[in-house]
Amino acid sequence: MMTLWSYWRSGAAHRVRIALELKGVAYQIAPVDLRAGAQKAEDYRARNPQALVPTLEVGGHRLTQSLAIIEWLDERYPTPPLLPDDPIARAQVRAAAAVVACDVHPLGNLRVLNAVRGLGADEAGVASWARGWITSGFEALERLLEDAGREGPFAFGPEPGLADCTIAPQLYAAQDRYAIDLAPFPRLAALDSAAQAHPAFIAAHPLSQPDAPES
Amino acid sequence: MMTLWSYWRSGAAHRVRIALELKGVAYQIAPVDLRAGAQKAEDYRARNPQALVPTLEVGGHRLTQSLAIIEWLDERYPTPPLLPDDPIARAQVRAAAAVVACDVHPLGNLRVLNAVRGLGADEAGVASWARGWITSGFEALERLLEDAGREGPFAFGPEPGLADCTIAPQLYAAQDRYAIDLAPFPRLAALDSAAQAHPAFIAAHPLSQPDAPES
Repeated sequence: MMTLWSYWRSGAAHRVRIALELKGVAYQIAPVDLRAGAQKAEDYRARNPQALVPTLEVGGHRLTQSLAIIEWLDERYPTPPLLPDDPIARAQVRAAAAVVACDVHPLGNLRVLNAVRGLGADEAGVASWARGWITSGFEALERLLEDAGREGPFAFGPEPGLADCTIAPQLYAAQDRYAIDLAPFPRLAALDSAAQAHPAFIAAHPLSQPDAPES
Repeated sequence: MMTLWSYWRSGAAHRVRIALELKGVAYQIAPVDLRAGAQKAEDYRARNPQALVPTLEVGGHRLTQSLAIIEWLDERYPTPPLLPDDPIARAQVRAAAAVVACDVHPLGNLRVLNAVRGLGADEAGVASWARGWITSGFEALERLLEDAGREGPFAFGPEPGLADCTIAPQLYAAQDRYAIDLAPFPRLAALDSAAQAHPAFIAAHPLSQPDAPES
């Protein structure tokens, strides 16, 4: 069985959990406690030289980087597809995924927020830093989805795909950690509602994870 | 003909120029002067809602996000391939590309360095911020390439591919802007030398661009 090295609150691990659930692939979770620094231990670094989650272990291989893992899953388990057939549409889906994965999430993950604290920012400054990148990313995403003009409620159609795997975790983090209101982003709000009602997204949710704190 | 909205010194535009040159596709450069804020003009934002470069205009479509554009190019023009055939190998190549595109470059681009200045960092602090992310990314990349165990001089073989499209621009920026020595990274140093001698990389180089300052 595949093993996903994961942390309940990591947005990048959350993406891969959604993809695994959408594909219906059997996997087990191996928690890595980022708050305790477990990702820096030598045995974990041997699995993931970046000391980041997620890592997917499968057949003796250690796959890293959430988008690379999800593309692999989509090639290995083609049903249901996470990318459309049309090349231009595929590029639009990948671009929307990359807005989150390249231009929003990396600026708000734990190691970067710690570095922002290291520059002297107080907690209000750290939150303002994170909120600013999330908000500008959401504005761009809303416009990209609008321009693509597909029906919803998911980013590019009635069924979830690669873009939803990255956007839904960011919507969760934006609301849960930074109390960002989705009202100015109607397409993202519709995606969020659809994800909250979808079995794969429910199973992959941070609060459904074995390492989540008990409520 | 395709039009690439580009800035000579943008690492993300640089990646797409390399891919276009490797594919031998005809394109024209439309410069966007990031230093002058041209990316924020309304007519450019209509092309790219993130107000970032690159944007590739092709057949009435506006493609954004460098990795999504390169994947599209690779699907539309399959020769020479930028990804291997084997699914696990494809995941390794995409992961190496993502180390740069998700975890190094976004922390050192113009808008983020300006935000770091906004937190009160002086120029030495800004350079130290950028150098730290580049160095830790290169350490991880060197180990990922070592673990993959492919022959060089490019990241995953004797011919360049998707990973090289992202790594080579980051190697240029690291040396040109931050005087980072590649000696501790023998595989990256070999990639850098091979890229400097390769016609596609030479044509795509920042200093070969129409909007580069005259030397």
